[in-house]
Amino acid sequence: MVKVIVADELVKANEETAAGNRRLLEEKGVVMVNLIGGPGAGKTTLLEKTLPLLSDKFCVAVIEGDSYTTCDADRIAKTGVEAVQINTRGACHLDAKMIEEALKQLPLDELDLIIIENVGNLVCPAQFDLGDDYKFVLSSVTEGVDKPAKYPLAFRQAFGVVITKTDLFPYTDFNLGSYIEELFEINNKLKIFPVSSLKDEGTEEWSQLVGRMIWRKRRGLTVM
Amino acid sequence: MVKVIVADELVKANEETAAGNRRLLEEKGVVMVNLIGGPGAGKTTLLEKTLPLLSDKFCVAVIEGDSYTTCDADRIAKTGVEAVQINTRGACHLDAKMIEEALKQLPLDELDLIIIENVGNLVCPAQFDLGDDYKFVLSSVTEGVDKPAKYPLAFRQAFGVVITKTDLFPYTDFNLGSYIEELFEINNKLKIFPVSSLKDEGTEEWSQLVGRMIWRKRRGLTVM
Repeated sequence: MVKVIVADELVKANEETAAGNRRLLEEKGVVMVNLIGGPGAGKTTLLEKTLPLLSDKFCVAVIEGDSYTTCDADRIAKTGVEAVQINTRGACHLDAKMIEEALKQLPLDELDLIIIENVGNLVCPAQFDLGDDYKFVLSSVTEGVDKPAKYPLAFRQAFGVVITKTDLFPYTDFNLGSYIEELFEINNKLKIFPVSSLKDEGTEEWSQLVGRMIWRKRRGLTVM
Repeated sequence: MVKVIVADELVKANEETAAGNRRLLEEKGVVMVNLIGGPGAGKTTLLEKTLPLLSDKFCVAVIEGDSYTTCDADRIAKTGVEAVQINTRGACHLDAKMIEEALKQLPLDELDLIIIENVGNLVCPAQFDLGDDYKFVLSSVTEGVDKPAKYPLAFRQAFGVVITKTDLFPYTDFNLGSYIEELFEINNKLKIFPVSSLKDEGTEEWSQLVGRMIWRKRRGLTVM
């Protein structure tokens, strides 16, 4: 029983902190997006390609979650966008408390958008709300079409799915139609973005969506 | 503090159960292999291609870890090999207790080999010993070369790494030389197996290695 009670307490404490993060960002008019995906799903590469588009129009910062290294934050820094690194020291997800600390390091009065890159893991990050406005799952065409059924929580909570590495379509047995069916089976409200960061396909469309999220928040409209 | 104490207790209890599993399989002369990899790394596909080779010569069973579905166990069943399904109900890894229960369902006196397919996750499964003889990490060429540095625990504990989806080499910027350097930086004893399950390349070599593990155990030799 100990395990269950402690887990419940942890989740409850996390939800309270997440609600606090959400209130703070609501006050400051900042949109926060949470990117979730397995190792190598293409989260950092999507950011490398879309941050230059977004930071042209908006004031953007990134919170980088990683078990040990700073290699992703270093890649983000090269785009000229400010990145706060959170090292979880082996832990498998970010939690709301870590984000609360990271927010203290960011100039919230100036920012329009914060993008969080979660730890590379499709299971645990889905269980911890961070106080974000929108969650996106990133899943590559090489991962196959069965991931929504196998990791339903992440897909159920997501606002959208970015299908990455579409340049590899011709070399895999990935079937986009079947995949979309699998996605809608789990969550029929998902926005779907096929993207090849390598070939700059779909990256502008995704950036435009994120831009619309910012405009909506500025006008005091609720999330989409 | 509660969190830390409970985590330590859980890990200690898991280690005791894992040691029990290991003793039982030692007695029975059964080799147990633990496959760890992120979502879509190609664990099930490797098994689909190698189980027919292995079950030709040895008596083999599979333990399938999955958060919710039975889709992988169904794929294994089609190869004619017995598969025990463990549904973790959202939990992000298998633990030794789950394996202890699964072993009760298997004819250990007849078996030579048990292959465990862990939950698709490169973080948490590395923290829980199952009582296996050999751990393999599966990582696909599309995941990029930075995974050993980012998920060091899994690679440090592994006996070998199966580099999957090598048929996609020509369409990615994956550099095998750099990857092997990254691997050896973390663990210079790793056995490395580049494999394309799709094209049946490297699958026979991996099966032969697993076969040698069985022969060694039959002769009472320690693990390699």
